[in-house]
Amino acid sequence: MKIGIVGLGLIGGSIALKLKSLNHTIYGVTNNKINEKKAKERDIAHFVSCDLGILKECELIFLALPIKDLINPSKHLIEAISRDQIVTDVGSIKNPIINKWEQTHPLFIGSHPMAGTEQKGVNAGFKDLFKNARWIITPTLKSDLNSLNTLSKLITTMECKVCQASPKEHDEAVSLISHLPIFLASALIETAHRESNKKLLNLTQEFAASGFADTSRVGGGNPELGLDLAINNQGNILKAIEDFKSQIGEFESLIKERNWELLSKKLLHAKEMRKNFIDSNH
Amino acid sequence: MKIGIVGLGLIGGSIALKLKSLNHTIYGVTNNKINEKKAKERDIAHFVSCDLGILKECELIFLALPIKDLINPSKHLIEAISRDQIVTDVGSIKNPIINKWEQTHPLFIGSHPMAGTEQKGVNAGFKDLFKNARWIITPTLKSDLNSLNTLSKLITTMECKVCQASPKEHDEAVSLISHLPIFLASALIETAHRESNKKLLNLTQEFAASGFADTSRVGGGNPELGLDLAINNQGNILKAIEDFKSQIGEFESLIKERNWELLSKKLLHAKEMRKNFIDSNH
Repeated sequence: MKIGIVGLGLIGGSIALKLKSLNHTIYGVTNNKINEKKAKERDIAHFVSCDLGILKECELIFLALPIKDLINPSKHLIEAISRDQIVTDVGSIKNPIINKWEQTHPLFIGSHPMAGTEQKGVNAGFKDLFKNARWIITPTLKSDLNSLNTLSKLITTMECKVCQASPKEHDEAVSLISHLPIFLASALIETAHRESNKKLLNLTQEFAASGFADTSRVGGGNPELGLDLAINNQGNILKAIEDFKSQIGEFESLIKERNWELLSKKLLHAKEMRKNFIDSNH
Repeated sequence: MKIGIVGLGLIGGSIALKLKSLNHTIYGVTNNKINEKKAKERDIAHFVSCDLGILKECELIFLALPIKDLINPSKHLIEAISRDQIVTDVGSIKNPIINKWEQTHPLFIGSHPMAGTEQKGVNAGFKDLFKNARWIITPTLKSDLNSLNTLSKLITTMECKVCQASPKEHDEAVSLISHLPIFLASALIETAHRESNKKLLNLTQEFAASGFADTSRVGGGNPELGLDLAINNQGNILKAIEDFKSQIGEFESLIKERNWELLSKKLLHAKEMRKNFIDSNH
């Protein structure tokens, strides 16, 4: 297929490299000349340009842009896409993006690949980022079934497992397993960074080991993403934080009351429940 | 050296395998015949026995036991150690263990290797668990300097970086970077496990990706360890949870008030501060 990818950062670049390896013809659009040059040097796509005009050849287009540029797409972008091209995005929230694009484009299908690293930019993408990852597709009643089918098949060939959910269900679910962890990790880092006690701070920085590294990892990611999620998934994230506060409050009470029997049960329950989230995927 | 190791689980087994590879003679003590057999099959030590009597040959002894067995050691264990043997432990808290052992043994030096996995038991140890890890030694005014010196040198040969702190400083620092994450990760798992909404639960379990896996990882560890930490480092852990609640509350307020400018700054600050905990170690 002739496939367009708008944005060649971590996600767009990885999609381009994977689809290129599957012998599709890739048309990549970057936001400036510097990135165009870098993308060409890395040989990310067959054609790379800052000019959205190169998309006109494509049968299917991935919009791999920041969330805010998906919700408020430029006039140039909308005009560069014709009504017979299948279009999907890769944003980590779906409802506001789909609301926008379904008004604009008849063959739009929202989607969200569940993979990432802390890197960003045109040097960040790599062919196997999505290997064995889930790729959520969020059709609505307005979705064109042929486009949905074509997109699902293409994603399956990328060694991803396709899942389906409604945009609303998607946004609620990811607020718990993907957005909440970002704010927890950031709050953990701020808690450990107790600036008022320099001696303690030196020790915590010196002692931090793999447990802290892992628990705080997603707090080291792209702050603009965290902000975009908060702006566009505010209600679900606030509900998730509220639930979390109630949970950590329960642990706190058990420790305060020295209710070791119940604390022990709760720690064991969490350990057991974690397997339902992890074992099936990893 | 002739070195004794009481307990051949993840930590004790890994110490044994590493020191054996460095040509020391290792005397390993297990808690029962089944583990004795397994440890012999894995060739973890030169001599393995359930009988503490084999320790009498040793110049230096590692106590790689659960925290509660370090704080309340058996009479047999205390009697099996003679006054001229250097003794250290590997417990994740130090103050209560050192209070106990300094009363009992003149050449006791507390220590804490900062490494681990989610595995436990006599099959869990491996030679390189401690490679490039920090190993904290917590001497007090009562510590014997020759013993401290011998222990430090030995640990350095194990490819660990030796750090020093007082037992009290250690317990406060690890409450922030090591104990708090366990309760956060457990509370995150319980939050995502929203049992009242089966459809949502199915989606969260299906969608959970590397971000959730990493942030929740230490909640999948040994629940007995979490309990022992809560019991024996209660004050510091409660303080850490309180500070954390205040931090997550700040994120919550900023999101609620749509104070995107400050939220953005705070996410960026956390990202930047994380580097001080991670880059220097990893």
